[in-house]
Amino acid sequence: MSRVRVHNFAVSLDGFGTGDGQTREAPFGHAGTRLLDWAFPTRTFTDMGFHGEQPGTTGIDEAFASRWNTGIGAEIMGRNKFAPKPGPWPDDDWKGWWGDTPPFHTPVVVLTHHPRPPLEMEGGTTFHFLNGEPAEALALARELAGGLDIRIGGGVTTVREFLRADLIDEMHISVAPVFLGRGERLWDGLEGLEERFAIESVISPSGVIHLMFSRR
Amino acid sequence: MSRVRVHNFAVSLDGFGTGDGQTREAPFGHAGTRLLDWAFPTRTFTDMGFHGEQPGTTGIDEAFASRWNTGIGAEIMGRNKFAPKPGPWPDDDWKGWWGDTPPFHTPVVVLTHHPRPPLEMEGGTTFHFLNGEPAEALALARELAGGLDIRIGGGVTTVREFLRADLIDEMHISVAPVFLGRGERLWDGLEGLEERFAIESVISPSGVIHLMFSRR
Repeated sequence: MSRVRVHNFAVSLDGFGTGDGQTREAPFGHAGTRLLDWAFPTRTFTDMGFHGEQPGTTGIDEAFASRWNTGIGAEIMGRNKFAPKPGPWPDDDWKGWWGDTPPFHTPVVVLTHHPRPPLEMEGGTTFHFLNGEPAEALALARELAGGLDIRIGGGVTTVREFLRADLIDEMHISVAPVFLGRGERLWDGLEGLEERFAIESVISPSGVIHLMFSRR
Repeated sequence: MSRVRVHNFAVSLDGFGTGDGQTREAPFGHAGTRLLDWAFPTRTFTDMGFHGEQPGTTGIDEAFASRWNTGIGAEIMGRNKFAPKPGPWPDDDWKGWWGDTPPFHTPVVVLTHHPRPPLEMEGGTTFHFLNGEPAEALALARELAGGLDIRIGGGVTTVREFLRADLIDEMHISVAPVFLGRGERLWDGLEGLEERFAIESVISPSGVIHLMFSRR
C-alpha cells in the first residue's frame, strides 16, 4: 500500500505553521521566510530555484529536505497553499505560486470549496481541484499516483485535518527557533498524537529541530 | 548583578506547561507526570525524593537538571505552583506540595492576590506572600537573596509574565515529546522572543529537547 507522507513542513517554536496576513507577496504572512530559512540553502531547494547559496548545502538539513519527492506519485494541498485568497475564483488566471513549471512533476489534488477544471502545467504537474473530505482527496490522489506514495503538502489546516483523520503514515516537521506569536497553529486539537506516532528528533547546525513522526 | 534564571521548566510539543484540571492529587492536571518523566530518574530529582531509579542517572538530562539550585538565593513562584486552588486561603494549613522540608532551602516569594504571613519551613525555606507585579517580586527576591541569583520557578503564567516583562536572563525549557492538547500555553504573546535571546538546543537520549535561552 502506498504511504501518506509529510515533508519539510515548518512550524515556529510556538507552534505556528504560517503567520498572520497571507498575501500574494507574502505567502507566509508576517512570518516572511523565517520558517524555511534552514531549507533555502540546501541543494534540494537551490535546485528548485530558491535563492540560496550556490552550490546548495549537503549536510543534515539537506538529508531531510531531499526526501520530499522520492517515491511520491501525487500531492494533496489545501487551497491556502495554492492561492493567496479564499472564496470563489475571480477567473482561472491564478496558476499557483510556482510559475509555468511547478516543482511537483506529479498530479496535485487541491482541496477547495470552489472546484474548477484541471490545470495542466509544464513538467508533469497537473492540478486537480476537489471539494471533499481528506479521505476523498486521498482516494483521488491514490488513483492518480500509480501506486506511489502520497505527499500531504500543506498548508497548516490540511496537515492538521489529515492528522485528525489519522491518514498520515510518516511526517517530517521542522521547528524553527523563532516565535511568531500569531498565525495558524499546527498542533491544535491533537492531544495524544504521541500514542499514534513514534517521534524522533535531531538538531541541525542551522538551529532547526527536525522531528520525524512514524506511525506506530 | 544577580541573574534571573529558569530551570527545568517543562512544556509539551504543543506548548502546554500544565494540563487541564489541576487538583491536589494532580498538580499538572491531565498531564500527569508526562512533562517531567525525563527528570525524575536523574540524580538531582532522586536526591529530592522523587521516585526515580536509584541511584539517579548522571547523563545529559542530569547535566541540565542539576543546575537548578546552584548559585540561587531566592525563588519566585506563582500561586498556582504553591497551591492547587486560586482564591482566598480557607486557612493557613496549606504549606505547599513539598512536605515539612521543601527542596528550595532559600526564601521563596509566592505571588498571590491574597497575602498571608510568611511561612518558615524546615531546611531554610521561607515562603513570603506578595501581591504585586513581577518587578516588585524581583525587588523583594533580590533583597532576600543575598546577592545570589533568582530562580523563576513557575507555573506557566509566572514564567510567561516575567518573559513579557523582559526580566529573565537565562532559561532552560525542556520540551517533552507529548501532545497535551489542552491546558496552559507557555508561549502565548511572545512574538519575537528570539530577538531577545540566543537559543541553543540539544536532544537527550530520553527524547526530550532541552532549549537554552541566553539573553543577547
